Amino acid sequence: MTLHSTSDPISKERLRLWLRMLKTTRMIESCVRDKLRSEYGTTLPRFDVMAALSRFPQGLKMSQLSDVLRVSNGNVTGVVDRLADDGFVVRVAVAGDRRASLVQLTDKGHAEFATQATAHETWIDDMLAEFGPDDLGALGVRFEALMTSLEGKD
Amino acid sequence: MTLHSTSDPISKERLRLWLRMLKTTRMIESCVRDKLRSEYGTTLPRFDVMAALSRFPQGLKMSQLSDVLRVSNGNVTGVVDRLADDGFVVRVAVAGDRRASLVQLTDKGHAEFATQATAHETWIDDMLAEFGPDDLGALGVRFEALMTSLEGKD
Repeated sequence: MTLHSTSDPISKERLRLWLRMLKTTRMIESCVRDKLRSEYGTTLPRFDVMAALSRFPQGLKMSQLSDVLRVSNGNVTGVVDRLADDGFVVRVAVAGDRRASLVQLTDKGHAEFATQATAHETWIDDMLAEFGPDDLGALGVRFEALMTSLEGKD
Repeated sequence: MTLHSTSDPISKERLRLWLRMLKTTRMIESCVRDKLRSEYGTTLPRFDVMAALSRFPQGLKMSQLSDVLRVSNGNVTGVVDRLADDGFVVRVAVAGDRRASLVQLTDKGHAEFATQATAHETWIDDMLAEFGPDDLGALGVRFEALMTSLEGKD
């Protein structure tokens, strides 16, 4: 079975696939936002910042954190401020650079993120239950190739 | 070739696919935003509103437009105001309902959207060039099934 219609140019098929990708991605993201709020009283930007910091236990400068998240420094600053107020992250001075500081997850932050990340994996597992092992293998290869091709166009 | 690793539980594979979907979707969306701005001096919300109106030539009430776009009425109002200032949309009174009005694309709006939509299709065609006819058929089927399954969970 294929959805490719011989009367449409291939650009129309690509557009249709893109609109489906966009719609499913937005539905999943919106569900993740709702669950983060209702179950953990947190937001996707907070979750994303904690996820980035959990991968760099030695800490990240604000500029590195922005790079990892691909968002503007200004937005990240507010999120980090509120995470610090909650005791999930700390700013640590960098030896030899008085103006720079590293943001690190605290022990409390690591524990909280571990809980949220486990729940997040369960939500995604449930939402993508439609995709079995064979689908995941095939789709993984296609998206990996797409990602490489998009990075080449940057 | 498959990326499925036997040591990982399938939930990890689903999470990995989700992170790839999210990353590629954000890259494509960000590229579309950049091109809309640099080539047409417009934004994705403006493009989305015009796209919705182009599918309903008889016009849409503000609440219907918000439903179609799945965003809050407040955001749409500002976008429609600016599109009206530019002469791309008009508000038309509804017979028998003094408080309601329909938003319609003007002839100028239809012409502008046709130009932008053609360019948009070309950008997507270029970014998804990695996907040939067989990929598009197979991915279309998988995403259609995913969309149906997600809508069932709503």
